[in-house]
Amino acid sequence: MIAAVVPAAGSGRRMAAGKNKVLLPLAGRTVIELTVDRLLASRLFGRVVVVAGAAEVAEMSRLLAGFSTQAEVAVVAGGAERQWSVACGLAAIGREWEYIAVHDAARPLVSRQALAAVVADARQYGAAVLAAPVRDTIKQDDGTGFVAATLERCSLWAVQTPQVFRADWLREAHRRAGEDGVVVTDDAALVERLGHKVRITVNPDDNLKLTTPVDWQLAEILAREELTGGTR
Amino acid sequence: MIAAVVPAAGSGRRMAAGKNKVLLPLAGRTVIELTVDRLLASRLFGRVVVVAGAAEVAEMSRLLAGFSTQAEVAVVAGGAERQWSVACGLAAIGREWEYIAVHDAARPLVSRQALAAVVADARQYGAAVLAAPVRDTIKQDDGTGFVAATLERCSLWAVQTPQVFRADWLREAHRRAGEDGVVVTDDAALVERLGHKVRITVNPDDNLKLTTPVDWQLAEILAREELTGGTR
Repeated sequence: MIAAVVPAAGSGRRMAAGKNKVLLPLAGRTVIELTVDRLLASRLFGRVVVVAGAAEVAEMSRLLAGFSTQAEVAVVAGGAERQWSVACGLAAIGREWEYIAVHDAARPLVSRQALAAVVADARQYGAAVLAAPVRDTIKQDDGTGFVAATLERCSLWAVQTPQVFRADWLREAHRRAGEDGVVVTDDAALVERLGHKVRITVNPDDNLKLTTPVDWQLAEILAREELTGGTR
Repeated sequence: MIAAVVPAAGSGRRMAAGKNKVLLPLAGRTVIELTVDRLLASRLFGRVVVVAGAAEVAEMSRLLAGFSTQAEVAVVAGGAERQWSVACGLAAIGREWEYIAVHDAARPLVSRQALAAVVADARQYGAAVLAAPVRDTIKQDDGTGFVAATLERCSLWAVQTPQVFRADWLREAHRRAGEDGVVVTDDAALVERLGHKVRITVNPDDNLKLTTPVDWQLAEILAREELTGGTR
């Protein structure tokens, strides 16, 4: 079993819902409940630390109280940036956990197989990220609004979460990023900075990140399909 | 007014529908009808050449016959690769057209504003592609399953269609690609090979490409929203 940090303090600016998007309902439950449920159902996680905005710690604690029979579940207060929230979560995970996953609260539909695959890769290689092949043609601009290069699509990956790391690598990565004033939204990038190799775990399944209102409608469809199809 | 080539001979492998996906219904009409209708409704296009698989020329001609009152609409037979289909389409466009757009048949929901913007940019710069900022973190692999680099997301663009070009640039690009044995799925890349600068036209609107069955469900939602919202 490993530990997980679930940053959930996001402002949800792109949702324009006036409320943290992971507290909105999807298929009858809040997104944060669905996400924690999904992690625990995999039986891969023994401790899950959800990092909430200070004003939402009480509400999320109440929502997640029922999960404490399945694993150690805690809600702690985070920071203004996602990276600082992850660091707050790491501080709430004991040294006995050798591997730590970071998983977006807004990805409630990650499949059981994908969770198992990325944890297995992290155990083998020390660091692994879920990723999907890039579908679109990707071009790099020249800074003035023109194309500088068309990238070789077959070597590109759209990175998702969970990202899973040896706990010591992830803790050092966050400590060094703090010292160096580096702020990013991708934990693996901080581990890469230390020179560690990060495995790409190919995810053939949907792993939608809820960002815009349209994502919500799509997620309702996917959640319904799962309930009726049940193959996942 | 400009001309457009609409490659529509795709095999739709990822749809697993057993039929060319652009002949499937969406919001009550086939996708190819919706796409041609969207182009013509913009009043930017005076000639539209749809390139179909040889076995589907008759069916598409019948579906699109009603549009001939609005513009010159033709259906011609294409090749096995998208690039060859575009070349077949170019051969059916007269030399009097100074600008030619290439637009995926499977993008029926491109907004009127986006069409106007990319055509205007092509008139100003000679070549322009619609594109959206990349939302995901993109990593490049090292060829052995590990991360080689995390790319600077703010300089990356997911390229869409239409892509609009000076007709002489696009014709030369396809001729040279044929001579050099280069086969790609992105017309702009062929124009870039000649050394021409290609403008990135930022598209703030949805411009879904129908690829998987889930895309279809999402497109139904977007099409319904358009019908009820009507802001586009």
